[in-house]
Amino acid sequence: MSDTWFSNDEMRAIYESVKNWGRWGHDDEAGALNLITPERRAAAAAEVSAGITVSCARELPVTPSIENPHPAMHMMVRGGDDCVTPGLGLASTADFVGVAFHGMATSHVDALCHIFVDEQMYNGFPATDVKSTGAQRGSIMCAKDGIAGRGVLLDIARQRGQGHLEPGTAITVADLEAAEAGQGVTVGEGDILLIGTGRDTRRDESGPWHPWRDGLAGLHPETIPWLHERGISVLGCDGVSDVLPGNHPSDWPMPIHQCVIVAMGVHLLDNLRLDRLATTCAEQNRWSFLLTVAPLRIEGGTGSPANPIALF
Amino acid sequence: MSDTWFSNDEMRAIYESVKNWGRWGHDDEAGALNLITPERRAAAAAEVSAGITVSCARELPVTPSIENPHPAMHMMVRGGDDCVTPGLGLASTADFVGVAFHGMATSHVDALCHIFVDEQMYNGFPATDVKSTGAQRGSIMCAKDGIAGRGVLLDIARQRGQGHLEPGTAITVADLEAAEAGQGVTVGEGDILLIGTGRDTRRDESGPWHPWRDGLAGLHPETIPWLHERGISVLGCDGVSDVLPGNHPSDWPMPIHQCVIVAMGVHLLDNLRLDRLATTCAEQNRWSFLLTVAPLRIEGGTGSPANPIALF
Amino acid sequence: MSDTWFSNDEMRAIYESVKNWGRWGHDDEAGALNLITPERRAAAAAEVSAGITVSCARELPVTPSIENPHPAMHMMVRGGDDCVTPGLGLASTADFVGVAFHGMATSHVDALCHIFVDEQMYNGFPATDVKSTGAQRGSIMCAKDGIAGRGVLLDIARQRGQGHLEPGTAITVADLEAAEAGQGVTVGEGDILLIGTGRDTRRDESGPWHPWRDGLAGLHPETIPWLHERGISVLGCDGVSDVLPGNHPSDWPMPIHQCVIVAMGVHLLDNLRLDRLATTCAEQNRWSFLLTVAPLRIEGGTGSPANPIALF
Amino acid sequence: MSDTWFSNDEMRAIYESVKNWGRWGHDDEAGALNLITPERRAAAAAEVSAGITVSCARELPVTPSIENPHPAMHMMVRGGDDCVTPGLGLASTADFVGVAFHGMATSHVDALCHIFVDEQMYNGFPATDVKSTGAQRGSIMCAKDGIAGRGVLLDIARQRGQGHLEPGTAITVADLEAAEAGQGVTVGEGDILLIGTGRDTRRDESGPWHPWRDGLAGLHPETIPWLHERGISVLGCDGVSDVLPGNHPSDWPMPIHQCVIVAMGVHLLDNLRLDRLATTCAEQNRWSFLLTVAPLRIEGGTGSPANPIALF
Repeated sequence: MSDTWFSNDEMRAIYESVKNWGRWGHDDEAGALNLITPERRAAAAAEVSAGITVSCARELPVTPSIENPHPAMHMMVRGGDDCVTPGLGLASTADFVGVAFHGMATSHVDALCHIFVDEQMYNGFPATDVKSTGAQRGSIMCAKDGIAGRGVLLDIARQRGQGHLEPGTAITVADLEAAEAGQGVTVGEGDILLIGTGRDTRRDESGPWHPWRDGLAGLHPETIPWLHERGISVLGCDGVSDVLPGNHPSDWPMPIHQCVIVAMGVHLLDNLRLDRLATTCAEQNRWSFLLTVAPLRIEGGTGSPANPIALF
Repeated sequence: MSDTWFSNDEMRAIYESVKNWGRWGHDDEAGALNLITPERRAAAAAEVSAGITVSCARELPVTPSIENPHPAMHMMVRGGDDCVTPGLGLASTADFVGVAFHGMATSHVDALCHIFVDEQMYNGFPATDVKSTGAQRGSIMCAKDGIAGRGVLLDIARQRGQGHLEPGTAITVADLEAAEAGQGVTVGEGDILLIGTGRDTRRDESGPWHPWRDGLAGLHPETIPWLHERGISVLGCDGVSDVLPGNHPSDWPMPIHQCVIVAMGVHLLDNLRLDRLATTCAEQNRWSFLLTVAPLRIEGGTGSPANPIALF
Repeated sequence: MSDTWFSNDEMRAIYESVKNWGRWGHDDEAGALNLITPERRAAAAAEVSAGITVSCARELPVTPSIENPHPAMHMMVRGGDDCVTPGLGLASTADFVGVAFHGMATSHVDALCHIFVDEQMYNGFPATDVKSTGAQRGSIMCAKDGIAGRGVLLDIARQRGQGHLEPGTAITVADLEAAEAGQGVTVGEGDILLIGTGRDTRRDESGPWHPWRDGLAGLHPETIPWLHERGISVLGCDGVSDVLPGNHPSDWPMPIHQCVIVAMGVHLLDNLRLDRLATTCAEQNRWSFLLTVAPLRIEGGTGSPANPIALF
Repeated sequence: MSDTWFSNDEMRAIYESVKNWGRWGHDDEAGALNLITPERRAAAAAEVSAGITVSCARELPVTPSIENPHPAMHMMVRGGDDCVTPGLGLASTADFVGVAFHGMATSHVDALCHIFVDEQMYNGFPATDVKSTGAQRGSIMCAKDGIAGRGVLLDIARQRGQGHLEPGTAITVADLEAAEAGQGVTVGEGDILLIGTGRDTRRDESGPWHPWRDGLAGLHPETIPWLHERGISVLGCDGVSDVLPGNHPSDWPMPIHQCVIVAMGVHLLDNLRLDRLATTCAEQNRWSFLLTVAPLRIEGGTGSPANPIALF
């Protein structure tokens, strides 16, 4: 009996079974974003009634912390002290913002060129297409006109009756389906699925922790075929969707990243802040909403920092 | 007779006449964003029918040009060449993106702390509240949950029957009202108003030009009371809303920035790309849409790069 | 009896007693660098005989660590993978390097505008002369032609017969004079004094530690009058010259930085790597050398990253 | 008759004839720096008599200009305005500095991994050894202990009786030897050779110009065998050593960079400021001096910004 959840061979079989390569053409770089059809987008907008917006992003992390060793940069180009000279003309301030956004504290989108399996990204483009000067394939530019569709939050911490899941907790298919039933929502084709683990709540209560060392709650790899079957377009989480540490075999250290991005062509949203969203969902008694994600138009980018906005 | 459109005293009078200071409380930092009520937001969403998204942003400008002397930074942290080592474990790429976003080529939001008149920002907070470590008042964080409301495009180039307005062209109240009539749309309270000058078309045809030296089309200062009367919440432009160079008196080098941001408390969207939006509006024969703007959550930020998304 | 080494009043008296303000004119911004006369510089060069160079700098710290929460940035602009296209013309690589160099792991020079006492820097210039756009007084540009003079290493760890001093160890005047006697060298006017605490040795042996929390060996404030009397031009250390934590009174949290930079006008060299220098000094049986420090010419800079080079 | 100075085949022959590959071992990464022996270094120091230092660097170019489209970044992390709060404790300022230093306005060192010929760098290491995460071979770390040796300035503008050479002027062997004779200095093995073209003088007089479009004075490729024969260790220039534009054949767009760096293993110093040095040399009537170059210790770096210091 294996001491990992799946063997390397079993993971390989899952990976192969959820492949969307060629489904939208051999040159396609948008992957499962193709599942957000105009009809589905219009239907998502039609659900809006309260006129409330909720951000799903964390503050840009400019302070180093145990979960965030590579903080963002935010520096003034010109502050107010340089705007109080008599006769200045236009008095204006400016600043610089920069971030290596992949990491464990910045809310961001993972483009399809972010992860490789067998030195290939989604749709079979080679890893070496991501040059030192930028990605020639699979960049975030496939989402340059924004992602807008029906968002669904499955709040697993709430479903389990907990404020938060403990780091390392693996979320199963049973958890997902119990949340669907408990919340009265069904994840369908083209949906942007958000998974709430209560990470924000736990961090607010007891401070940040080291995600790689101390773990993050996330999806058990058994959920991968379920995600594929449901036909989600995008997957987001207040963690990184993968459970850390998981009982994973050697070749599959982050099976969600590897199977969902590379095989399925699904963009990930990492390190979201979902507690405010969960509160609003509970207040509105509605777990679906119009969700818009607006990546910066970074040519050759492996993703983008983002502030996804839910509209109820 | 003055050789400027208005004298310093006349501009001062306009400035005072459109002041919203105190209107939403003396501690308010959101300004005219208060005009986007939940009802108006829901109504804007209800207009969505085609399910089409259009980005209003330019590509992040990483190459220096005559209009863009301070390019954005985009560099790989790890490219594909470092992902082809056997036995690597997770093969992933990453990059860094950074930008001093105020300027003439990056699509961005101006926060209310970006501009001062008499060493004061909107609602009377002192310029010196914008510290070298960030803004303590008037930062972009007032829009941290995103801006979502009814967007209206007034395509002045189209209204005048031109592909683009020449740099330096001043757009008058008559132009705005003619565009309203011609397009069959009326700018109302809480609207996010976008002004199209054809800058993208001109740049595509004949290359970039130096905005400060060679000019940009923009709004004549006579439009300021009109903007105030209509009650716009946000003002955007493919230029910078102000006409450059304008026949402005010495104290008012950028009267739109000075009156609209500081007096009215209206956020600006600068350097948008509006040609695709104009095309879609013409195709849909509809000049209003749901517009979402999702600034990065930059504490103390004087604005944010952004990719505003219109949803039809 | 005070439980601090000195009271606030006593520290104030020390501060006043070592003031060099006005000594080189009321507009002077170079401070004790004035003590490195051409004669002394030529004499230092005349000591060179072995033709050996030794760097006193650490590697630019690009990896975050407990001592280094704000790592330097080093990213490729173009790597070798983009240089293997046939017919490319010139095949060249390039990179970007950036650093917020003040901190606990980057070898750097502190300019005289880096520290204030009573909202004043060296020679009485006001703190507000360091604008959000750069220092108008006291910047590193006073050393733009480089610092070159006689360097003297006092290796206190060696003097005490230890591989390293424990964090928090306070180095006294007796230590300094014992090292002088033991090494056969006397610190004189214009010398660049380097203090070795064995920090590198300790870090190599047991890894980095948190300087603010766990401490650094450094100079007891009783050494300040001694440093002034000897007339040093520059002070460097493998730590930050100050002992952390020290038994300091409330107004004087870093008395060396406060008195030596502000009162005496002495530039500091922080976070040097001195173990290689110590080895060479022992091998050469000579504890003085020609030392050159070449700050980047950063207009308005509060210092510079640097790689000081000792020449024997 | 060819309309280029040399044909591709002739340049290839020159390239092969000056190769130092294997000369200092097949793993050597320091190249001609090996020629600066301790004896030569000590002899250079022995020449020091006046005790004067002169910087050979330009100010870090933070403002974009026609010669400098990628300016350096210099931003405050904390300015004086944040140091005037009562009871602050230590009042200190800090800043960030960053630069993509290869280019046409930053004084910098080119490491041996900066240029490839036939997809190989000096000593035959493959171009692909310069990864997206840094150079694994040929990085600037071979000079981590600094470069210190005898510098020689050949002031060609002065030799020709001109304030500056016109852009595009090719400096010949006859020019070099005439300057040697006129100045009374002979370039010998291990010397750091600096070539003055008067670029600073011209820029001060008539402003910056576009180096690629409008040209730079530099060395004719006929000088390459001469440089090899003399055995220089490092080559520097107020331009980029290569003449732009040159009558070069297609495969050799920058023959000095290609032959001197790749074949000879000689580090280049680009965009120096040499007018102050020339003035001092003339005043001292001495065209050799101790020159120290202290690159930042950037692991994997393709070079470093630098402030070379001449000591007379």
